[in-house]
Amino acid sequence: MALVNENFLKLPGNYLFSEVAKKVAAFKTAHPDADIIRLGIGDVTRPLPPASIEAMHRAVDELSRSETFRGYGPEQGYDFLIESILRHDYATRGISLSPSEVFVSDGAKSDTGNIGDILGQDNTIGVTDPVYPVYIDSNVMAGRTGDLVNGKWSNVTYMPCTAENGFIPALPEKRVDVIYLCYPNNPTGTTLTRTELKKWVDYALANEAIIMYDAAYEAYISEEDVPHSIYEIKGAKKVAIEFRSFSKTAGFTGVRCGYTIVPKEVMAVTESGERVPLNHLWNRRQCTKFNGTSYITQRGAEAIYTSEGRQQIQETIRYYMENARIMRQGLQAAGFQVYGGVNAPYIWLKTPEGTTSWQFFDRLLHEVHIVGTPGVGFGPSGEGYFRLTAFGQREDTLRAMERIARW
Amino acid sequence: MALVNENFLKLPGNYLFSEVAKKVAAFKTAHPDADIIRLGIGDVTRPLPPASIEAMHRAVDELSRSETFRGYGPEQGYDFLIESILRHDYATRGISLSPSEVFVSDGAKSDTGNIGDILGQDNTIGVTDPVYPVYIDSNVMAGRTGDLVNGKWSNVTYMPCTAENGFIPALPEKRVDVIYLCYPNNPTGTTLTRTELKKWVDYALANEAIIMYDAAYEAYISEEDVPHSIYEIKGAKKVAIEFRSFSKTAGFTGVRCGYTIVPKEVMAVTESGERVPLNHLWNRRQCTKFNGTSYITQRGAEAIYTSEGRQQIQETIRYYMENARIMRQGLQAAGFQVYGGVNAPYIWLKTPEGTTSWQFFDRLLHEVHIVGTPGVGFGPSGEGYFRLTAFGQREDTLRAMERIARW
Repeated sequence: MALVNENFLKLPGNYLFSEVAKKVAAFKTAHPDADIIRLGIGDVTRPLPPASIEAMHRAVDELSRSETFRGYGPEQGYDFLIESILRHDYATRGISLSPSEVFVSDGAKSDTGNIGDILGQDNTIGVTDPVYPVYIDSNVMAGRTGDLVNGKWSNVTYMPCTAENGFIPALPEKRVDVIYLCYPNNPTGTTLTRTELKKWVDYALANEAIIMYDAAYEAYISEEDVPHSIYEIKGAKKVAIEFRSFSKTAGFTGVRCGYTIVPKEVMAVTESGERVPLNHLWNRRQCTKFNGTSYITQRGAEAIYTSEGRQQIQETIRYYMENARIMRQGLQAAGFQVYGGVNAPYIWLKTPEGTTSWQFFDRLLHEVHIVGTPGVGFGPSGEGYFRLTAFGQREDTLRAMERIARW
Repeated sequence: MALVNENFLKLPGNYLFSEVAKKVAAFKTAHPDADIIRLGIGDVTRPLPPASIEAMHRAVDELSRSETFRGYGPEQGYDFLIESILRHDYATRGISLSPSEVFVSDGAKSDTGNIGDILGQDNTIGVTDPVYPVYIDSNVMAGRTGDLVNGKWSNVTYMPCTAENGFIPALPEKRVDVIYLCYPNNPTGTTLTRTELKKWVDYALANEAIIMYDAAYEAYISEEDVPHSIYEIKGAKKVAIEFRSFSKTAGFTGVRCGYTIVPKEVMAVTESGERVPLNHLWNRRQCTKFNGTSYITQRGAEAIYTSEGRQQIQETIRYYMENARIMRQGLQAAGFQVYGGVNAPYIWLKTPEGTTSWQFFDRLLHEVHIVGTPGVGFGPSGEGYFRLTAFGQREDTLRAMERIARW
C-alpha cells in the first residue's frame, strides 16, 4: 500500500491562524452584533498602486491579442522584472548580482517553504524564537526537526528573542547548518543593525552554514543603520539566500509575487565533501516543480519600480507606518510595553503580568472586540507577548486605540 | 557544513527542452535567415478567451479600490471558482465532490511536482513510458527512484506505450504503490477507453495503490468512449488524485491556474498500518508552502465556465484540433505513421526506420527548419518517435506540412 509521509503527522493539529479564526467565528456566533476590529493576520488593506493597476490592465490586453499574446514565461521570471529588481533593490545599495541569481516566484511563502527541497535531510536547523511558522513546519514535513517536546522540536535550535535580550538573538552554542533569519522581523517588528547582522554572516562563514534571510518587510525600514539586504554585509554572498516579497511592499498579497536571490557562490556539500552551488539546484527545482509567475502579476510588479510606482508604494507604506505610530503611542499611553512598529508594520506588546498570550487574546476579543495574534503561536519565547498589525484601515486603527484607551 | 540534497545530483544534466532550445539556438546562429517553425514545446498561441479578459480587467479594477480590494485569498482557492469547477467539470458527468476536495493552484506542473511531498520516501513508482518528465524528476529529487542505468531509474517501473501495444500500458508485473497516468497522454496524444482505465482503477483498489491522474488535456477529448475524469470509473474516488489545468483548456500557460482533486476517501498508510486521508495532508502542505493563486487569475478562470466563456474555449480548441487534423493528414500523406491528434493536441509520429529521435530532430531542423521534440526525451520507449504539437498558428501549421510534403 502507498505510504504516507509520516512527518506530516507530527505537526500539531492547529495552524495558528485557523485557531484564531475559529475563536473569532465562535465569538461572532455568540455576539452577532459585536463590531470586531481585526488587527491579527498580516494582510494589507490598501488598494494596489495605480501604476501596477495600469500595467496589469495593459498586460491583460496583451493577452487578448494573438500578436502580443504570451504563453509560458521563463520559470525564473521575465528579464524586464529581474532587471528592475537588480537595478532598484540592489545596484542602488552597491550590491552587484547577475540576472541568473534572481528567481521570481509567486511569493516568499512558497519559496521559504520550498527551499528545503534542495537541502539534505540531515541538516541541523536554527531559528529565532518567536518565528514565522513556515520555516519550522516545512522542515517538520521534510523530517529534519525530530520530535515536539514541550512546544519545541528536539532537532531545532531555538534562539530566543525577548525583551530581556533586546530581541537580538545570541549565536547558537551548538553548531547549526541552516539558519532562518527574518528582518525586519515577523512577528516582533524588531530589526538587526549592520553590526548585529554581520555577526551572523561571520558565524555562517566560519561554520559553513547557510542563512535563509527573509527580508519580506524590507520596504518598511526607516532607520539608517538597518540593512535592507543581507548582501550589504561583506561575505554574505557566500552564505546567504535572500527572500523578498511584493506582498507587503506593494499590496500584492492576493496577486502573488516575490523573488529569491541565490548567489552563485552559495555552496552546500555532499556527504563525501563535494561542494555544490545551490543556485544550480534551485534553478532545477523551479524548472521541474514550478512554471513561472503570472505574466500579468510580473508586469504589475515591474510597475512599482517606475518613478510613479515608487512614489505610490511609499505613500502606502507611510500610511501603514502612521498606523504603527498611532498604535505604539496608544498602547504606550495605555501602559503597555511595546516593541517594533518603527521599521516594520508589526507591533509586539508585552501582555500584562500573569496573563498568557491566549488569555490576552481572549480578553481583547471579548472585552474590546479586537483580534490580534497570541505571541506563543509563533514559538515558546512568544509567550507573554501579543502581535498587532498596522495593516488595518486608519479608522479601524484609531477606533481600536480608543477602545484600548477606555479599556 | 550545510548538506545538499544529493538526489538532485543524480538528475541528468540536460532538461529535454533546454537541450532542444540549445540546438535551435546553435542552428539559428549558423543560419540567421532560416525561417524556423516551432512545433516543439507544448505552448499555446491563441489569445485568451474574451470572457476571461473581461473578468480579469474587472478583477484588476477591484484591486484598485479600497472597498473592493482583496488581499490573501484562501490557500485552496476561492469558492466562486471551486463551485464553477464542481458544477461544470464534475456534476455534469455525474460526479459528486465536495468543495474541500478541490485545491486551486498555479498549475498542474506545480501540483504534480509537489504532490510527492505528502508521500513516504519508500513508495515504489510506476510510470507509462514515454512520460511527462516532471513525474519522474520530482521523484528523483525526493530520492525514490534509485539510480539511472541505461536511461532507466532502477526503482521505477516503466510501462511501455508503443505502436506494438497500441499505446495501452500493461498492468505492472511487480506491484507499485504510486502510478502516474496522463490521459489524454502527453506526449503520445493517445487515450484510454473507459474499459482500459477501469483496469487501472481496479488494480489500484486491489493493490491499495494510488493513481496520480493528470487530465490536463481533458478538454481535447472528442470521442465518446474516452473518460474525461478518472472519477467516471467506479471506485476511483478511493484511489485517485486528479490534476487539471487551465493552460491548454483556456490558454492560461502564462496566467497560471490549475486544480487538483484529492477525494477524502483516498488513503495512504503509515509504517505501522494506520490509514491517513491524503486530503488532510495536501491541505496542510498547501497551507504551509503555498499562499493561494492570484485573484485576477482565478476570476479569469471562473469566466471560462460562463456560457460565452465555454463557447470561446470550444472555438479555440476546435482551432487547435483542426491543426491536428491538418498535421495528421499531411504527415500520413508524406508516408509517416502517425498517432494521437484525435483526442489531444499532440501528434506522435514514428521516425523513419533506422532514424533515432534525435537524428530525426536534427534532420527536421536542418532540412525543413521545423522544430519538434525527440520522443526519447520522454523516456526509453519514446525512442524512434517524435512529438509535434498542434498549438501553432494555422499558417505555420500549413506551411510546415507543405515543407514536409515537398521534403
